[in-house]
Amino acid sequence: MNPIPCNARWWLVALASALVWMPGMATTTHVDAQDTVHAPAFTVPFSSYASLEARKLFQRMLEQGRNAPPLDGPIAASRAYYDKINTARAKLMERLYPVTIEQRSIGGVPTQVVTPKQGVTAAEQHRVLINLHGGAFLWGAGAGGLVEAIPVASVGRIEVVTVDYRQGPEHVFPAASEDVAAVYRVLLKQYPAKNIGIYGCSAGGVLSGEAVAWFIHEHLPVPGAIGMYCGAVAELSGDSARVAPVLDGSAPTSPLKLADLPYFKGARASDPLVFPADSPELLKQFPPTLLITGTRDFTMSSEIQSQRLLTIAGVDAELHIWDGMWHSFFSDPEMPESKEAYAVMVHFFDRHLGH
Amino acid sequence: MNPIPCNARWWLVALASALVWMPGMATTTHVDAQDTVHAPAFTVPFSSYASLEARKLFQRMLEQGRNAPPLDGPIAASRAYYDKINTARAKLMERLYPVTIEQRSIGGVPTQVVTPKQGVTAAEQHRVLINLHGGAFLWGAGAGGLVEAIPVASVGRIEVVTVDYRQGPEHVFPAASEDVAAVYRVLLKQYPAKNIGIYGCSAGGVLSGEAVAWFIHEHLPVPGAIGMYCGAVAELSGDSARVAPVLDGSAPTSPLKLADLPYFKGARASDPLVFPADSPELLKQFPPTLLITGTRDFTMSSEIQSQRLLTIAGVDAELHIWDGMWHSFFSDPEMPESKEAYAVMVHFFDRHLGH
Repeated sequence: MNPIPCNARWWLVALASALVWMPGMATTTHVDAQDTVHAPAFTVPFSSYASLEARKLFQRMLEQGRNAPPLDGPIAASRAYYDKINTARAKLMERLYPVTIEQRSIGGVPTQVVTPKQGVTAAEQHRVLINLHGGAFLWGAGAGGLVEAIPVASVGRIEVVTVDYRQGPEHVFPAASEDVAAVYRVLLKQYPAKNIGIYGCSAGGVLSGEAVAWFIHEHLPVPGAIGMYCGAVAELSGDSARVAPVLDGSAPTSPLKLADLPYFKGARASDPLVFPADSPELLKQFPPTLLITGTRDFTMSSEIQSQRLLTIAGVDAELHIWDGMWHSFFSDPEMPESKEAYAVMVHFFDRHLGH
Repeated sequence: MNPIPCNARWWLVALASALVWMPGMATTTHVDAQDTVHAPAFTVPFSSYASLEARKLFQRMLEQGRNAPPLDGPIAASRAYYDKINTARAKLMERLYPVTIEQRSIGGVPTQVVTPKQGVTAAEQHRVLINLHGGAFLWGAGAGGLVEAIPVASVGRIEVVTVDYRQGPEHVFPAASEDVAAVYRVLLKQYPAKNIGIYGCSAGGVLSGEAVAWFIHEHLPVPGAIGMYCGAVAELSGDSARVAPVLDGSAPTSPLKLADLPYFKGARASDPLVFPADSPELLKQFPPTLLITGTRDFTMSSEIQSQRLLTIAGVDAELHIWDGMWHSFFSDPEMPESKEAYAVMVHFFDRHLGH
């Protein structure tokens, strides 16, 4: 073989220098003149505050994320993938939290009415909860709704109506808001507004806020209380939009924007019926609001910002966060963190709904 | 110059490979079998939720952090450094929030009694707040207490007694708890316990929780409400202990442990009078508690965990977080975030203290 020419020595030096100077090799944090943090590679152990059960499920959550079909792939694949996961979760939940499930069309919208096997308590006879499932306004109908409704119905001894609202890509905003309003109008014949609660996770958390804005727009009374979990009134942004994908194993990803979801095609992000966060006038009419998230949830900052804006608007906005927990963590009923979240949800509606 | 031997070619290849394989060069998150996240280098823009005023102060905060004397250096240097910063802040605050400041020994402990120039309102005549300043149980006496007391006294139209409790390294636990108790005993002659609130930031947040535990231990009645900001009942740990030093420009640092502070020399970390978080029996006797932090505060996770444990214990624990905000952010009165935090503090004590 031929000897390498001498100037290769300088190339070696340059390469070695690159090892030191390339941004990826930085060992300290640098903040540039645009106030952007350039974080070096670093390690984060699993949170010592989180439970052993959560630690066991962490790798399963990572695997589910790795195996998930791409958000922009065929919708049938995504729906089948998440439906399988949610069906298994709902089955497990039914063992832990015995309930009766009835398919019912309410106001022309398909719903599942979930009631506790132990019976609805006397105190909850005159109250009802509406659940709006998660799934990026793309999937989660059916089993996804059951996963959010079953533990709350059972722990709260209350009836929960989970709504299969219209989603993208077949439907666009405000189809889901209209469907929630259709169900709500029927329930208003049976319950005073202050005795009705609405809650949901992820897209369902976003839709819970949008529904309240929609009701105000439609001159309907607002419900007694709402819960916006893992998604709220503010567009996704802030520190968690960048940090959580690192902590939950999904990085690198471009930060997800709700406005980019197929369901919001053609909608204006400046429309307060899409993001009520931008309308103090709407926010101040919101009922008491529960916000739930985790430190490894990319929506954490939008939950935090939603609490901030609701508080400024004079609304009682209660924030609960679990350390080390990921997006929609309480879909897994095995963790103490999930059981604590169910208790917080039930306690919140119990304190705030009318009697 | 002599030609480089041919096998240098292989070394070049090895070096180039190292560029790809060295952990610092990873471009995706990897979670190992011990559930530790290996984060690649990544960037985090300044939070779009945070105010323009906060963005302007971000670089100043970074600079103050860079210039700070080391925690294990001469104590006089640290005290002088922070006293200069706090004196400037207190001066600015006095312009924004006119108050009267009186040096007073209460129960043999030096305090500063801060009252609003506009006068204490009739509703607040029978209430008082005790402030416990921050500063790692090392510094912050004097001006540091004023920074925490002035805006609250002025906005709340209430008297605030800020306590110069004994600190390390000259003194060790439980000297500060004893000093707070000495002041509290005197105030109890004038006010019912339920009309007294206690709050503090950082070490002062930790001490607020320790003081309640100490009162219970001493068979004193608990105060009506407390505020534990940027430090609470749980030892520092969790996701923010790793992530915040990256976001606030201080990485790399070994995560700070409260138990390692000079003040806790000789104390047992398992002592519930040091970390009440470990004692459900103590926690359930806590009064309503306000917790405040930011997403770039290394104590965020301990605040979150404190809320979690207090909630499990049945205590009304209210958590407020501001996105993009750093440790003790509301010491800077120029930001809307700080003004919002003062309003949350005042509103919280107004709702929870006795009349």
